[in-house]
Amino acid sequence: MNAAIRAVVRKALHEGMEVYGVNYGFAGLVAGDIRKLTRRDVGDMIQRGGTFLYSARYPQFATEEGQLKGIEQLKRFGIEGLVVIGGDGSYRGAYALTKHGYPCVGVPGTIDNDIPGTDYTIGFDTTINTVLEALDRIRDTATSHIRTFVIEVMGRDAGDIALWSGVASGAEQIIIPEKEFDITEVADTIRVGREKGKKHSIIVLAEGVMDGQEFAEKLDAIDNFHVRVTVLGHVQRGGSPTARDRVLASQFGAKAVEALKDGHGGVCIGLDREEYVVRDIVDTLDNMKHKPNLDLYKLNEEISN
Amino acid sequence: MNAAIRAVVRKALHEGMEVYGVNYGFAGLVAGDIRKLTRRDVGDMIQRGGTFLYSARYPQFATEEGQLKGIEQLKRFGIEGLVVIGGDGSYRGAYALTKHGYPCVGVPGTIDNDIPGTDYTIGFDTTINTVLEALDRIRDTATSHIRTFVIEVMGRDAGDIALWSGVASGAEQIIIPEKEFDITEVADTIRVGREKGKKHSIIVLAEGVMDGQEFAEKLDAIDNFHVRVTVLGHVQRGGSPTARDRVLASQFGAKAVEALKDGHGGVCIGLDREEYVVRDIVDTLDNMKHKPNLDLYKLNEEISN
Amino acid sequence: MNAAIRAVVRKALHEGMEVYGVNYGFAGLVAGDIRKLTRRDVGDMIQRGGTFLYSARYPQFATEEGQLKGIEQLKRFGIEGLVVIGGDGSYRGAYALTKHGYPCVGVPGTIDNDIPGTDYTIGFDTTINTVLEALDRIRDTATSHIRTFVIEVMGRDAGDIALWSGVASGAEQIIIPEKEFDITEVADTIRVGREKGKKHSIIVLAEGVMDGQEFAEKLDAIDNFHVRVTVLGHVQRGGSPTARDRVLASQFGAKAVEALKDGHGGVCIGLDREEYVVRDIVDTLDNMKHKPNLDLYKLNEEISN
Amino acid sequence: MNAAIRAVVRKALHEGMEVYGVNYGFAGLVAGDIRKLTRRDVGDMIQRGGTFLYSARYPQFATEEGQLKGIEQLKRFGIEGLVVIGGDGSYRGAYALTKHGYPCVGVPGTIDNDIPGTDYTIGFDTTINTVLEALDRIRDTATSHIRTFVIEVMGRDAGDIALWSGVASGAEQIIIPEKEFDITEVADTIRVGREKGKKHSIIVLAEGVMDGQEFAEKLDAIDNFHVRVTVLGHVQRGGSPTARDRVLASQFGAKAVEALKDGHGGVCIGLDREEYVVRDIVDTLDNMKHKPNLDLYKLNEEISN
Repeated sequence: MNAAIRAVVRKALHEGMEVYGVNYGFAGLVAGDIRKLTRRDVGDMIQRGGTFLYSARYPQFATEEGQLKGIEQLKRFGIEGLVVIGGDGSYRGAYALTKHGYPCVGVPGTIDNDIPGTDYTIGFDTTINTVLEALDRIRDTATSHIRTFVIEVMGRDAGDIALWSGVASGAEQIIIPEKEFDITEVADTIRVGREKGKKHSIIVLAEGVMDGQEFAEKLDAIDNFHVRVTVLGHVQRGGSPTARDRVLASQFGAKAVEALKDGHGGVCIGLDREEYVVRDIVDTLDNMKHKPNLDLYKLNEEISN
Repeated sequence: MNAAIRAVVRKALHEGMEVYGVNYGFAGLVAGDIRKLTRRDVGDMIQRGGTFLYSARYPQFATEEGQLKGIEQLKRFGIEGLVVIGGDGSYRGAYALTKHGYPCVGVPGTIDNDIPGTDYTIGFDTTINTVLEALDRIRDTATSHIRTFVIEVMGRDAGDIALWSGVASGAEQIIIPEKEFDITEVADTIRVGREKGKKHSIIVLAEGVMDGQEFAEKLDAIDNFHVRVTVLGHVQRGGSPTARDRVLASQFGAKAVEALKDGHGGVCIGLDREEYVVRDIVDTLDNMKHKPNLDLYKLNEEISN
Repeated sequence: MNAAIRAVVRKALHEGMEVYGVNYGFAGLVAGDIRKLTRRDVGDMIQRGGTFLYSARYPQFATEEGQLKGIEQLKRFGIEGLVVIGGDGSYRGAYALTKHGYPCVGVPGTIDNDIPGTDYTIGFDTTINTVLEALDRIRDTATSHIRTFVIEVMGRDAGDIALWSGVASGAEQIIIPEKEFDITEVADTIRVGREKGKKHSIIVLAEGVMDGQEFAEKLDAIDNFHVRVTVLGHVQRGGSPTARDRVLASQFGAKAVEALKDGHGGVCIGLDREEYVVRDIVDTLDNMKHKPNLDLYKLNEEISN
Repeated sequence: MNAAIRAVVRKALHEGMEVYGVNYGFAGLVAGDIRKLTRRDVGDMIQRGGTFLYSARYPQFATEEGQLKGIEQLKRFGIEGLVVIGGDGSYRGAYALTKHGYPCVGVPGTIDNDIPGTDYTIGFDTTINTVLEALDRIRDTATSHIRTFVIEVMGRDAGDIALWSGVASGAEQIIIPEKEFDITEVADTIRVGREKGKKHSIIVLAEGVMDGQEFAEKLDAIDNFHVRVTVLGHVQRGGSPTARDRVLASQFGAKAVEALKDGHGGVCIGLDREEYVVRDIVDTLDNMKHKPNLDLYKLNEEISN
């Protein structure tokens, strides 16, 4: 996120604008927790994980009262446009403000990659590499001890993290919300692998499908696999972002400023087949749907076993 | 482990010995899963996590029958001495074989650092750095979102992993089996930190004390902390070893060969205040006790808050 | 590379083909250094840097004699099609064999990203992340000591590595073969930065432009910058590949097998705006040209200072 | 360094002291670039490379005039004792101030590990792991291409970095200032390795012995090895510190404060066989000498080939 904020600040200053930062997302917006940002405030920031503007859940922003209060605060500081970085909730807020006549631009930032209107989101590349490192380590153990592992990764609605990290790690099986699975077939695949002499079996499971522990119990009920479960949890967030995430975030941030400068509000930035695009945020939320790359699912079935 | 095996093989060949590897620990020993190892078998191995000789639990080795069968296999291959790398179970096995008159040398290899007779074990340095990376990442999130996190790390009997990774990450509190704690004081410390303006509170908990989830529930029962729990689990194992672990393993492996060459059996290798030592394995198991560095506990109380 | 080889082997076996590996590239091909590969030969390979089939320069393959000898060897093993992974030299070889009537498929593998007909090559993403880590470390020093650093990175003909790692690291200036530069302006930018209070100035220089030492001398001739030079060199290669590189390599490998299966020879695989494509290799080499993303150059000028 | 500064600040506050930070080392001391530090100034600092108090060379501090000016500044702020973190130059300065009657404590901080009176210095563990990563990557290339590599690492007077990273990476040869070498034997060892079927030969060279390029030329003059040279340079500094370095730095920082509190000036902190010690700084500089662990040199000769 810091790379995106840095780009927004620097690009805006480059365009001769003044820039303010809102701490703690919409909560801070309503509370007026707003401060001027200079070039130096975002110096030596690009490599840091997290966000130096902090983050907070704030369901109250769904009310018209909250939204109008937010706009009031922005006007009080003389701020004429807002860039919102985040996922679904951030986009809904940006959409609401735009409907009230205040120009907002959404920038897709979430590790799950599940935002419509863009091929990739800020954070996704970092997260799949973090998950990959964990999977590589687990394979060291799995190989040495000949075991079956179930690794629960993030992805409540979208299997992207499981798909990419699964293919990249050479996981034997990938279980995602977008694909039905049959626990008996999962068990059969493990057995066939063992007969072929496979030293380990690693199953990457998106949390949206089922709890890792529950999945392991279902497997062990079929055969005595002695499945080990690891829930990666919060370890998947944070960390110094990858090159691609920093480049993506920098581009997104700059494009968002360009959109505001061109008078666009109610839009969101996206990457569409390597091209940066600006789309209507309402249309994007209402009519577009994120789809994971299911070719990876098929590929993994063919080459992982 | 691979670095230690490499050192044993290379040092033994350097001394003009022949070397065999036993797959799957004592299980493979009894089954005769034994193969000759050459210089090249251990080439490009030093950087790999896990062990290329595999590993297995084998409680049956506690029986005299198993032990005698193991010695029979060793003799069948003309093997005159055995180096065993591992933790408590491995040492007990080495001790038993020695009592039956077969010379064994124990090398301390476990991520928990809880083996008597040595300051450090192979794997510990790698693990604390792996845990540290996870804690650094979690802090990125904790700082951005202002939350309390409980991170459960390995250490059934020993708090070493929690202590070292806790101090290194600047964790607010460290909970280990060697120190009593009072959940009310833990809660108070979080509250005081928040009042001082701390953005996050990270508590590193050794698994030997309590389950992470249980600990979190106790905390949340006192006050509404909304504690997040992460159980690092198997992610703590494996991975390419650190410089220090590879050097330690190489030294341990070479010393073990020297001990066998000098006619010592029934000994274990250790690092005692930067010096490599050879100790009686029985005496070590019976009379020495691993103690974590509790100065780190006191230090953390003084500088973490 | 190993991830691509693994995918070729597994996908081909999945399609019911037999697979052979050629060691040491075209040199091994001519020498007949060829061996059958099984599913297990490529197990636990996906995470390893380098290539387990080795690599070698072999300029003699430019001669018709070498090419015919290579085809002879392939026929001797009953091999009906060849997948060649590499850069320009590999493609030329694949093209030559195809002209002699032997079906070859080229897969783009080089860290420089400078192969026509594809947006990305295998190895590029890993390399920019490796370079980025080095740049992040150098910035730590640069910030602490207030210095100007010139970092020479790979890229004889293409500025891609410099561009991506430069933007990702927040480098103050990026010097690439595709863009003219004026050393006086470079010096001016450093001076302006210092006046603004910048603690450091990092210049990423593609080796194709000039030697790092030479560049530093030119700068120091203008003003007393005390420029420090680091030539990253071979450190940029190798290492465990990133998630994206492993996924890309897996897809490329599978597509190459599909192309051969469909009877295509003389083609190369590419990624074109997120879509996997199969192109004529002759046409690609003759008529397409790799172009770096120069939007990144402009972006960096706007947000890095 | 930041971990040490954090520990000094937090421990001193814990002891009821006030704490000031001096920017830019002795240069800032003389200039009075001094600021009060609070608990929060060192929050979220432990994981960062470099030093947030900056660093600078300042040879003028060798003069009595500079030293007295420095003491004047300290008194102006009401500061009663000084902790100096660094290498030889820092120690000399601390010694000089102490001779003028101002209490100073030296803390060993340098990546070279070449400070007398301590087994390890802050930064050494991080650096050998950074070098190790580079060596692991180079081996990937070396193995794939069958080449001889010379890697020049830091160490003007001390071979510690070369020794530890060399053993840890399984380098074929290690060349350090503390051991004579014969270039003909170096060449012979490479040749013998090749005859044994070794795929690569990696030579780690401490910069204090000779320039990497010069060494390579000497080797190539003997036989046509086509030696590749990599000078790691500034890449060896910076980066997030390892667990061990952070723990060491935290302990050193706290011990320094304890020494000042106990009325000790003119001392330096050290780690002596796992015990933290406080020594006379004059005696340490005059009569103690840093010695690398030459057992590692012998070990490597025995197991690396």
